[in-house]
Amino acid sequence: MSLPEVVSYLRKDDNFLLTGHVNPEGDAIGSSLALAEALSGIGKKTALYSRDPIPGLYRFLPGWEGFSSDLPPGHILILMDCSRRERAGIPAGAAFRKTLVIDHHETECEPGSVCFIDSRSPATGMLVYEIIKKLDVDLTKKMAMNLYAAISTDTGIFRYDNTTPESLDAAAELVRAGAEPALISEKVYETWTRERMTLLCLGLGSLEVRDGIAIMAVSREMFEKTGTTIEDTEHFTIFPRMLKDIKVAAFMTELDRGVVKTSLRSKGDVNVREIAEKFGGGGHRRASGYRVSASLQRAKEMLFKAAAEALRSRG
Amino acid sequence: MSLPEVVSYLRKDDNFLLTGHVNPEGDAIGSSLALAEALSGIGKKTALYSRDPIPGLYRFLPGWEGFSSDLPPGHILILMDCSRRERAGIPAGAAFRKTLVIDHHETECEPGSVCFIDSRSPATGMLVYEIIKKLDVDLTKKMAMNLYAAISTDTGIFRYDNTTPESLDAAAELVRAGAEPALISEKVYETWTRERMTLLCLGLGSLEVRDGIAIMAVSREMFEKTGTTIEDTEHFTIFPRMLKDIKVAAFMTELDRGVVKTSLRSKGDVNVREIAEKFGGGGHRRASGYRVSASLQRAKEMLFKAAAEALRSRG
Repeated sequence: MSLPEVVSYLRKDDNFLLTGHVNPEGDAIGSSLALAEALSGIGKKTALYSRDPIPGLYRFLPGWEGFSSDLPPGHILILMDCSRRERAGIPAGAAFRKTLVIDHHETECEPGSVCFIDSRSPATGMLVYEIIKKLDVDLTKKMAMNLYAAISTDTGIFRYDNTTPESLDAAAELVRAGAEPALISEKVYETWTRERMTLLCLGLGSLEVRDGIAIMAVSREMFEKTGTTIEDTEHFTIFPRMLKDIKVAAFMTELDRGVVKTSLRSKGDVNVREIAEKFGGGGHRRASGYRVSASLQRAKEMLFKAAAEALRSRG
Repeated sequence: MSLPEVVSYLRKDDNFLLTGHVNPEGDAIGSSLALAEALSGIGKKTALYSRDPIPGLYRFLPGWEGFSSDLPPGHILILMDCSRRERAGIPAGAAFRKTLVIDHHETECEPGSVCFIDSRSPATGMLVYEIIKKLDVDLTKKMAMNLYAAISTDTGIFRYDNTTPESLDAAAELVRAGAEPALISEKVYETWTRERMTLLCLGLGSLEVRDGIAIMAVSREMFEKTGTTIEDTEHFTIFPRMLKDIKVAAFMTELDRGVVKTSLRSKGDVNVREIAEKFGGGGHRRASGYRVSASLQRAKEMLFKAAAEALRSRG
């Protein structure tokens, strides 16, 4: 579906249920909130779904309280920042009149749905920004805050190589419309507790580097020692990436029941999505993730091996 | 001096010696390099002065090798990102035909010089960007890289509250002209050594928080233990700032001979320049610094006291 088509699709129908993916972050949350407000602005009825609670970091985004884990009947489902119902945590039995996908991941469209997917776009928030501009609705301060948070989350606040001129043009217009860059950065990146800093340093103490692959890990023991939870590890992927001469950076979290969650970040041109796919995960070229049932040490060995192979196969 | 006046001043004369301040950072270095290239582009002779070596972090900026600590005679001195000869480390006896100041600090003009100062501008790089646009010279990729580095340094890569729509417009145009946001972020923020991470965690271990004031300190002993130097503390000010419910964040470095260097950052509306001025330092509302001769512990006590007074006086 093209931009004019998705705009006309939204205009023609009514009663939309918007949802991001499970474990929602800035792009999923901000994009959903901004589009819901814009649709309300043109007289549409909307509702917001999230299987998981909105993380504390994002509980300043205008309208976040509107998310609910209820699934009211009779809606058009809009999958935001994901393309599959399972990824949004929608139960198999739930019925919707239709499904629309708005996403920037390299992905295929959910069967039976219509899709507005642009994998060249740095964020779903950019796609929503383009939709809102075409909807003939005022860009309110609330929309601007949500879209700025969405776009800045997925560009690492304009640090990653998906920082396009268009994303910076959008950022400028969003600030003109009332978005507050400093407030957003502060809320998302600067609300650490002392315990979280201690957890970070315990994790950094575990850093292992081999052949351009850096792995930082947080164990159950570290969580217990510091009284922290997985929510406190948000943005920890930044730190192994900060090391020089690194091609792949990984952050591992030991979850309950022997499961290790891994986030991968590429520095340079390694496609970390391919590495994640070896373990049944997915994502982008530059940012991906997966889960394995293994001990932390075993998970590290598996990743060192897989990443070294991926690096070798590039020649 | 207004923008058209400074442009006409630069057009009319020749033989410019550009210098940033001592301990130069991205804005001083990038602004000087971009303006020097633009002036060369309209046929002017230029030279670049820096009393101090260019820090390793910035040794990817196009043209950085051009800085020298020589002071050739017969030039017009251009003070970039500072307004006093002493701040640039120019010896008292050095003679120049004239002096021009291009700065965005709240400051007074060097006596006997002409000044283009705009304290509302987020970076000296923004002022140079405006000058270059008026000079009728092509915005080259090299200029774009230097200006993007300059502007992003002083806005914390578009995180601080000086992130204006104009700075984001400029960023978009600079990326169109060839600036590479990801490369710049990587070079400036993501070239850490293991030893630097260890130093960070030792410093974070020293964190003290009282009444909304957070102080992180790095001692001589920590440098010795990790084999690091003061250059490795670049950007450490970010970390005490990351704590929630903080109004003032400080990063202290124990230098040789009993001197403590302090960088202050404001979170919220405390004017940290006023606090720095109590100790003979200066800077901006949101970012300032000073040096005192004292032990680390004594310097912390002095700052807790001064910052608490500044917070109280705001009511």
